[in-house]
Amino acid sequence: MSLDIVRELRQLMAQQQVDALIIPTSDTHKSEYIVDYWKIREWLTGFSGSAGTAVITNQNADLWTDSRYFVQAKNELKEPFKLFKLKTRGHEYIDWLCKELKPGDRIGINPELFSLSEIKNFETKLSKRGISLKLQNDIFDSLWKNRPIPQTNQIYTHSIEFNDLSRIDKINKVKSYLIETNADQILVSALDDIAWLLNLRGSDVNYNPVFRSFVLIQPNTTVLFVDQEKLNSDLKNELINNGILIKDYQLIDKYLSEISNNSTIEIDGNSANYKLINSMPAGIKIIESASMVGKLKAIKTDAEISHYKNAQIRDGVAMCNFLHWLEDSVSKDFITEVDAAMKSEEFRSVQNNYMQLSFETISAYAENAALPHYSCNNENPVLLKTEGLYLIDSGAQYTDGTTDITRTIALGKVTNEEITNFTLVLKGHIRVATAKFPYGTKGFHIDTLARLDLWQQGKDFGHGTGHGIGYFLNVHEGPQGFSQSQNGSAASILEPGMLITNEPGIYVEGKHGIRIENVLVCKEDLKTEMGQFLSFDTLSYCPIDKNLIAVKLLNNLEIDWVNNYHNEVYELISPHVSEKLLEWLKAKTSPLDRSN
Amino acid sequence: MSLDIVRELRQLMAQQQVDALIIPTSDTHKSEYIVDYWKIREWLTGFSGSAGTAVITNQNADLWTDSRYFVQAKNELKEPFKLFKLKTRGHEYIDWLCKELKPGDRIGINPELFSLSEIKNFETKLSKRGISLKLQNDIFDSLWKNRPIPQTNQIYTHSIEFNDLSRIDKINKVKSYLIETNADQILVSALDDIAWLLNLRGSDVNYNPVFRSFVLIQPNTTVLFVDQEKLNSDLKNELINNGILIKDYQLIDKYLSEISNNSTIEIDGNSANYKLINSMPAGIKIIESASMVGKLKAIKTDAEISHYKNAQIRDGVAMCNFLHWLEDSVSKDFITEVDAAMKSEEFRSVQNNYMQLSFETISAYAENAALPHYSCNNENPVLLKTEGLYLIDSGAQYTDGTTDITRTIALGKVTNEEITNFTLVLKGHIRVATAKFPYGTKGFHIDTLARLDLWQQGKDFGHGTGHGIGYFLNVHEGPQGFSQSQNGSAASILEPGMLITNEPGIYVEGKHGIRIENVLVCKEDLKTEMGQFLSFDTLSYCPIDKNLIAVKLLNNLEIDWVNNYHNEVYELISPHVSEKLLEWLKAKTSPLDRSN
Repeated sequence: MSLDIVRELRQLMAQQQVDALIIPTSDTHKSEYIVDYWKIREWLTGFSGSAGTAVITNQNADLWTDSRYFVQAKNELKEPFKLFKLKTRGHEYIDWLCKELKPGDRIGINPELFSLSEIKNFETKLSKRGISLKLQNDIFDSLWKNRPIPQTNQIYTHSIEFNDLSRIDKINKVKSYLIETNADQILVSALDDIAWLLNLRGSDVNYNPVFRSFVLIQPNTTVLFVDQEKLNSDLKNELINNGILIKDYQLIDKYLSEISNNSTIEIDGNSANYKLINSMPAGIKIIESASMVGKLKAIKTDAEISHYKNAQIRDGVAMCNFLHWLEDSVSKDFITEVDAAMKSEEFRSVQNNYMQLSFETISAYAENAALPHYSCNNENPVLLKTEGLYLIDSGAQYTDGTTDITRTIALGKVTNEEITNFTLVLKGHIRVATAKFPYGTKGFHIDTLARLDLWQQGKDFGHGTGHGIGYFLNVHEGPQGFSQSQNGSAASILEPGMLITNEPGIYVEGKHGIRIENVLVCKEDLKTEMGQFLSFDTLSYCPIDKNLIAVKLLNNLEIDWVNNYHNEVYELISPHVSEKLLEWLKAKTSPLDRSN
Repeated sequence: MSLDIVRELRQLMAQQQVDALIIPTSDTHKSEYIVDYWKIREWLTGFSGSAGTAVITNQNADLWTDSRYFVQAKNELKEPFKLFKLKTRGHEYIDWLCKELKPGDRIGINPELFSLSEIKNFETKLSKRGISLKLQNDIFDSLWKNRPIPQTNQIYTHSIEFNDLSRIDKINKVKSYLIETNADQILVSALDDIAWLLNLRGSDVNYNPVFRSFVLIQPNTTVLFVDQEKLNSDLKNELINNGILIKDYQLIDKYLSEISNNSTIEIDGNSANYKLINSMPAGIKIIESASMVGKLKAIKTDAEISHYKNAQIRDGVAMCNFLHWLEDSVSKDFITEVDAAMKSEEFRSVQNNYMQLSFETISAYAENAALPHYSCNNENPVLLKTEGLYLIDSGAQYTDGTTDITRTIALGKVTNEEITNFTLVLKGHIRVATAKFPYGTKGFHIDTLARLDLWQQGKDFGHGTGHGIGYFLNVHEGPQGFSQSQNGSAASILEPGMLITNEPGIYVEGKHGIRIENVLVCKEDLKTEMGQFLSFDTLSYCPIDKNLIAVKLLNNLEIDWVNNYHNEVYELISPHVSEKLLEWLKAKTSPLDRSN
């Protein structure tokens, strides 16, 4: 099929005098999880991973993706697509196109699927080579038979019980910001920003409780652009009573084209697509910045953190039930990776306030866990044995919080290498969890803490140490993050009230993968003559497998941390478990033996 | 005087229809140390510190400088200048001007004293407010009576004995780079890059053995622009025989204006001044990047490192002689900070290959050391007492290397706070000195290591952890550095062969200042399945005061490091000292008492 489509695309390219096409994985909001309607790249190439870009020239048809997906892409790609391995998760294909194409050539792109900053970056590089971009409308509608249509699932209210601020409060906060910064209006384009702003949730995509929409806030008007079928009449009336104007999703371009030519508009450079920007009058002044709604959203209030902790306790109860079941069953039954993933979902689904998983569970045995984003499936069932390591990275959406936790456990006999590696990862985890740091510290400063004990042994891991996480919202949330990169989320200053994961790991190809992940909340710590210091509280509650800890590699502070953490896990989880599980929990959370 | 000058400047501003003037601390090469001729800001404001910018509007006359100089600026500033405190060492005054001026206003600057990237940055900010730059010629020639004239000190050869590569080899390296990158020519504008490239040294400024010049390298021509009086006829003939065309320094603008309109030129964005860029034909393609000559210069060869080690040993001998003298004399004589600084210079000056100091010695007693860039002087003599801490940060230019070392020592009774702080700084120093890290690691990743033990106690220090250092060249050298900032030198990848200082500290206002500084060389360490790892060797050899170490705060690895380091110091220094000093050295380098 792909061969035919690529042939048709090349005919179209010839007609439109275009020498290359870039087909990204994106929707009109630059979302991480996209609706089926926009899964063009997957349909075209066969590769179903969450990240990748197809690039078609007259000679080549390539799929560019990063190391998380090399194996999967190789298995799934359909003729004539070839895999191009990205060194970073960047836009290396533009550099490739700069070399491959010749001056005067044109590259076709759909501006709905790229941000302003992407287009600027492309144009800077391409212009040096005399290559230009040709903005095209979506050319796939006619080519893609049976293209899915956007869903019209109902939008619902996120209860005020879990929100410190009403949607009117939140909108007013944004309005005061507009007054402060002399901006006339702000376009809110990231779907989770909109959900947060309006205290609404939806189910247009998997895992992320968001709905397709835009919001434009002007001093006297707030307009929500949304498929109106998704709003029942009560909710519609409520929004109208809140002073919100409701318009069809498709009308955003037209509306933007009619705003005052002499006004200023603030946009979120990461999520506003270029077509929207192109719709605006030529004289408008665009202030491109990181989402200011996203910044407000990232700071959780004390009340929200207290709700969030409840969600984490229930998630911990589910995890304990799951790990107990697994340890018990693995020696008695045939358990596959998929069985385990399903069972963990089952234990979560019976918890109060449970809505859905927050991402696809990573359930990986032995060498499979060496792929940090391994996806298990029934076509290739993998049986868990009573030896080696098992890794589960999973989480859920509760109405009072989004969770994401990784545990790596011994299913039986393990090697010394596995124990050493686990302990080194744990040391990094503890360094981050116990860090104090001055206000102004950024994610890339903290990231080093997770690695330094690994580095001393010539080891490392190839992903960031952590990401922001939502409050009944996306499992990946900005602006904060821990990684080595000085561009992107790790360049954000850490602020009290931010939630962030702490997930160092190590991956030994063909052998094992280890990751230990908890959610942290950033908080104020001591204040000295050097200023305000910050630190973290750990908010995930599930035992860390003591069988994998080489106590002799830990110092006293690290041993204390493990014991205190397990003590807290016991205190918080024990009231909610059966007698049999209590016994397991007690053993799993008993103090480390310092003589080991 | 300043009042009159500012009045005259404002008249000139009115004539030229300019609403503000920016007078930076800079020369036409963006050097750190500048010739007297360009010390306009100092002459105008009275402030003699090495960093600061005067900004004059019709209402204001301000001097902007950073925290290192707040005290000094307050003391030295002349009417009508007021001190504006910079939060960072950036260009905050532009943001201030954006607010202070109104749309349509113009700011006068001399383009010789700003880099392309500075001008771009200014224009981006100013254009948003409708403010523009007016490029002016130097307006101070007529105002500044008795303005110093540029010096004409002789240029001399840096012996091939100490250089792996001849100037022809180095020029050919640059030429192959030009061929590789399809650039037609490269302008070398940083004075230390030129000195390195040509194996020449000069003495136009204090401390840095460089000379005013530019070099333009084209595939078939290399042109040196220099005051020809500085070259004796032998050297001139040698350069001509090496195929180097010699032209007058002043002819650079004219020469650049005549290069081919269709060609490309690579420039060093940090040191090429904007006037040069403005001289070039309009059609020329400018490739602005970090100095590629600077990158070559930064990687010292094995032979150079071996020479450098010899220089460091001699510097260590001088330091040991000095510390021994100081400990001996402080209880017997009246010793001031200035006396100590002079004595340390004396001990260095008798060493082989000594040329001059590499920067002004910081000799600071007790609370004076809390100013990281304290400058002692005889107008305000400070006597050293037999109690508290004394800090000396000093270094020299030897023909086989540039040194920079800081030691903080107890002159007698010290407080527990002083011992604790010293030990925390030492822990940071050791973490950096012993770090292993994967290839690709940048300075800002390593910087955290120097701070984390301080952070855990709510402490920190307000400067970077280290800077690149030259090989008989500038004491501050790029591209590498250790700091928290992701912009600038700490964003450079650390490469084997780079020299870099390791100098964490702590500064308690009104009490004491502590810094421990050694020079490191980056080298290859183990290679694993995760790739090539790097680490450092320490190349400064002088005891660290054991009286200030709280051994109980160190772990075994840290104690081992101190003992091994002291052992190496003893091995390398002891062959070169008197019997009396040998005794002192033995005691100073004996192992730490683990029972303490």
